[in-house]
Amino acid sequence: MGKNLTRKIIAEHLVSGEMKTGSEIAIRIDQTLTQDATGTMAYLQFEAMGVPQVQTELSVSYIDHNTLQSGFENADDHRFLQSVAAKYGIYFSRPGNGICHQVHLERFGVPGKTLLGSDSHTPTGGGIGMLAMGAGGLDVAVAMGGGPFYLTMPKVVKVELQGELQPWVSAKDVILEVLRRLSVKGGVGKVIEYTGPGVKSLTVPERATITNMGAELGATTSVFPSDEITRAFLKAQDREDQWTELLPDADATYDEEVIIDLDKLEPLVAAPHSPDAVETVSSLGHIKVDQVAIGSCTNSSYADLMQVANILRGKKVNDQVSLVISPGSKQVFEMLARNGALGDLIAAGARILEATCGPCIGMGQSPPSGAVSVRTFNRNFPGRSGTADAGVYLASPEVAAASALTGKLADPRTLGEYKPVELPEKFLIDDSMIIAPAKDPDAVEVVRGPNIKPLPVNEELPETLTVDVLLKVEDNITTDHIMPAGAKILPLRSNIPAISEYVFSGVDAEFSTRAKDSKAGIVVGGHNYGQGSSREHAALAPMYLGVKALLAKSFARIHRANLVNFGILPLTFVKEEDYEKISQGDVLEITNLRQQLERGDELTVANRNSGATFTVEHGLTARQIAIIKDGGLLNHTKKQNQ
Amino acid sequence: MGKNLTRKIIAEHLVSGEMKTGSEIAIRIDQTLTQDATGTMAYLQFEAMGVPQVQTELSVSYIDHNTLQSGFENADDHRFLQSVAAKYGIYFSRPGNGICHQVHLERFGVPGKTLLGSDSHTPTGGGIGMLAMGAGGLDVAVAMGGGPFYLTMPKVVKVELQGELQPWVSAKDVILEVLRRLSVKGGVGKVIEYTGPGVKSLTVPERATITNMGAELGATTSVFPSDEITRAFLKAQDREDQWTELLPDADATYDEEVIIDLDKLEPLVAAPHSPDAVETVSSLGHIKVDQVAIGSCTNSSYADLMQVANILRGKKVNDQVSLVISPGSKQVFEMLARNGALGDLIAAGARILEATCGPCIGMGQSPPSGAVSVRTFNRNFPGRSGTADAGVYLASPEVAAASALTGKLADPRTLGEYKPVELPEKFLIDDSMIIAPAKDPDAVEVVRGPNIKPLPVNEELPETLTVDVLLKVEDNITTDHIMPAGAKILPLRSNIPAISEYVFSGVDAEFSTRAKDSKAGIVVGGHNYGQGSSREHAALAPMYLGVKALLAKSFARIHRANLVNFGILPLTFVKEEDYEKISQGDVLEITNLRQQLERGDELTVANRNSGATFTVEHGLTARQIAIIKDGGLLNHTKKQNQ
Repeated sequence: MGKNLTRKIIAEHLVSGEMKTGSEIAIRIDQTLTQDATGTMAYLQFEAMGVPQVQTELSVSYIDHNTLQSGFENADDHRFLQSVAAKYGIYFSRPGNGICHQVHLERFGVPGKTLLGSDSHTPTGGGIGMLAMGAGGLDVAVAMGGGPFYLTMPKVVKVELQGELQPWVSAKDVILEVLRRLSVKGGVGKVIEYTGPGVKSLTVPERATITNMGAELGATTSVFPSDEITRAFLKAQDREDQWTELLPDADATYDEEVIIDLDKLEPLVAAPHSPDAVETVSSLGHIKVDQVAIGSCTNSSYADLMQVANILRGKKVNDQVSLVISPGSKQVFEMLARNGALGDLIAAGARILEATCGPCIGMGQSPPSGAVSVRTFNRNFPGRSGTADAGVYLASPEVAAASALTGKLADPRTLGEYKPVELPEKFLIDDSMIIAPAKDPDAVEVVRGPNIKPLPVNEELPETLTVDVLLKVEDNITTDHIMPAGAKILPLRSNIPAISEYVFSGVDAEFSTRAKDSKAGIVVGGHNYGQGSSREHAALAPMYLGVKALLAKSFARIHRANLVNFGILPLTFVKEEDYEKISQGDVLEITNLRQQLERGDELTVANRNSGATFTVEHGLTARQIAIIKDGGLLNHTKKQNQ
Repeated sequence: MGKNLTRKIIAEHLVSGEMKTGSEIAIRIDQTLTQDATGTMAYLQFEAMGVPQVQTELSVSYIDHNTLQSGFENADDHRFLQSVAAKYGIYFSRPGNGICHQVHLERFGVPGKTLLGSDSHTPTGGGIGMLAMGAGGLDVAVAMGGGPFYLTMPKVVKVELQGELQPWVSAKDVILEVLRRLSVKGGVGKVIEYTGPGVKSLTVPERATITNMGAELGATTSVFPSDEITRAFLKAQDREDQWTELLPDADATYDEEVIIDLDKLEPLVAAPHSPDAVETVSSLGHIKVDQVAIGSCTNSSYADLMQVANILRGKKVNDQVSLVISPGSKQVFEMLARNGALGDLIAAGARILEATCGPCIGMGQSPPSGAVSVRTFNRNFPGRSGTADAGVYLASPEVAAASALTGKLADPRTLGEYKPVELPEKFLIDDSMIIAPAKDPDAVEVVRGPNIKPLPVNEELPETLTVDVLLKVEDNITTDHIMPAGAKILPLRSNIPAISEYVFSGVDAEFSTRAKDSKAGIVVGGHNYGQGSSREHAALAPMYLGVKALLAKSFARIHRANLVNFGILPLTFVKEEDYEKISQGDVLEITNLRQQLERGDELTVANRNSGATFTVEHGLTARQIAIIKDGGLLNHTKKQNQ
């Protein structure tokens, strides 16, 4: 039986475990990336491990999230990250050099390599044939220290692409179609592998748009083969020598299969407030648009912005629409400046922002009250734009540009003749904003501003866990619900005591006070708890507040791993209806906990208020149990090194 | 005796009063401008006046301050401002179109006209021969309603420019030299008029840099003649028809005279923390630089940024320096994009920001803790950068660019051969981001987001004023003490009930609660009460909280005018030692107040707690007494129109 591409890459990197779906495996990590909002914590953790230099083939630290700098905190973080990178053998991509995933694809990604990033959109690298996964900062720190990355051996889903995209239909529509079919939970425990004759019609940046937003499926990652198209892209980036061909076997088998006929796709949007609320633009009728935002790691490549420039050239943005554009990288930005497209965008009335994540991560450009905002981004959760009652439609650059011109949600097929954008034979290459590690690491002093606080650590797991139910929430709680981002909170990412004040602040303003007043707490959730961003602060900050366990119907992968990493016990109901047996304010108790964890998957929980008892399961591996018992991975690692 | 230029323009516009230094005069206002941070309030006030259309020759509403949009408030303000402009006959300059003063100079300024702006750097227009002054929003609203602007007839200071600037010495160095000589208080009650043979060597944008930063002298305004240089500038802006020659008489007389030999100037900086702490760059030795910021209404013209591009072309920003550049306008931005200079700036490693005030007004790009930031801006007060312990050096674009390359404060004369930048024969003209007023004003609905609250109005002055002493403060209280700004409070500028919570919040956290609990209150201050920014919120918000009078040893001029405008009685001690007779919590009473005000300058105050009585004076003109009695200028204007 032939191997699929995912299994090939995993087999190449397998350190321990059996490649049996659902089993825990450990793989060697070749490359890591961090961004600044998760990176400060990751490097504090790396420092705490005491490893003198990173052990990976390549590690890169990017600045792309906290670049508004409304206060000293962001610039202090940048300075810390620059100095820590210089000292420990990490490449440093300066603010202004671009969004981590875009730059990594352009300058660093290598087919067949594994990439672990402290950002949920790390799967972008799958566009170039990498096995690229998002993880919490601590997992990335461990990988930088030479440790393997533990994951559950995923199912592999074949997405067979047939035919070719029609004019004005784009890669964004492909991933929106996948989301429409599979939903935001459809990828959990799976790798999405793209194959079929349609693959060769997609450029690397188009493939990267698809693998990037595969994160919204809850998938472990997504991957495309590495073929002649990949080679051409790497050649244009002056990196042809890093190309290898990488294909699934002709008779490869898969766990599931989806067929998408590219010919039949039409322009799609994800309507408010979920990336899988997908509709055709043509079906939605007249929707007045107040803002259009083009950019983000999903859609800010050279070709994306050139197509936008082609659409806007010689025209003017509707006078009721604010159009903001953030290029994906300095490479993209400078190329547009050199070839006249940037002048065209400015002339049309676009507001040009820095080459950063910007409004996608809620850093600025919040739309007006009750507004409709059309965005080429990847998430449209309520409030993520910074405006609680705004509705965000996720769309392709083509739909976005057409909407900017007309002032309403617009099908780009009404724009007339379609001119495809060809990728250049040679991209403009200038790595001067990427700073290499210091030649003399001992001479580098790490600079810590006053907002950079020491890393808090958890305690050992007690024998009897008695916890107050601090909060009970519904299905699909995102890490944005748990640990909001935005201009006010993001600058506190290096300061756990300060950022903890905002845990669940949009859901329940009293949460952090209640948690601190309680000795030990638990949060009860529904399905898909912790979906969305990989931010480990959604585990670390609750841990700091005394949350000892999470009990949900099901978890999102990265968040569950983060909970384990910080010593918070992740439990699921054996019978979902037991969810009804718990109210906020109840006291739950698990006795003989440490013994019970060893003995099997099931634990008995007593509700001290109602008297009810019910059964939960943990599904932890022996390794994870050991981590939880020690109070988290850092404690565990230290203990093992003793 | 010949007339100077200032007196000529005032005489042309005189509505009432005598042109005798120190007398109150009223002048007709031809043009007004607002920016968004002060504009929302100005237009709420204009609406409250009930005038159907603006009565000026031209009124323009700019968006340039609150463009980060970290929350719904900014975008709601933009939407309000756009709709109110359409309805009342005001041109609207969209976010992204540029900084008000730069755009006004390019597209609207007319020699010999009067311009009143709700921004302290409105004197920029003096560069093109306007009499251009900053004022509170209510004064601008009154001017839009057709009312005159009242001011004290200023002294006129002749600044005679001789010779020509040497290579690498720029207009910024001229105004820094004036600040070095006259100090930040040196211009109070004066207009600075530039004459002499050196004038003809300065382009309009260079002149505008000088008049712009004349605001830091405390001057009423600054003005240059309108000559062939002005004509060439207007011609290049396709507005030659708006040019008139405007010169002082050959035998014009002045109140004071300063002579500056341009040949002898060298590159200067204003060191932390005052615009008049001026030193030569060459005298300062090695100062490591962490950040360089180029832009602001002082130094963001086409020529400024072209010179920066010339300096940076083919080179790279020092890897320890963050260089941010904000173009002054869409015109500048698009021209740089079209001619390749923007590509050069990006290639060098500059971070390009929107064409707005940006970091100059503390909106973003705060430097790291303890940093040195070299900025082409106009103010370097402590904390204004957003980083309390940063030190800001104000400098020319040439000094800034040289410092960005070297990583230390650098004299641009070390850069080698100087290539002057010629202004283009024709600027790139595209006014598509300036929206003309609606043709059918009645059809326009003004859009008010939830943060835009109706304007509170004061009550008539009672016959007996009985007030609680809410707070007693020392000398030199600034409007920043009274009504703080910053990223948290600035978005509340359209919401007096909300922003009032922060009155004196840095001085006494209980102030607003105490004021609201009291029926009527008074604040007792020392010398120079209300110095600093012109923000009328420092009068309006206390008025909303029930502050009826201010009793101080002396007042800053603009703040005193704002108090009168909002019906707060400004009183000064006849004997300064009576300040000691008052404690916080005392009750003060003035009987027969309305009669006493008419009768003369002195009023008797009784302290109901101590039994002491003492005398205060008001120094109000008959016009101001009428305003105070009616409970402020808005009530007064309405009453007069009845």
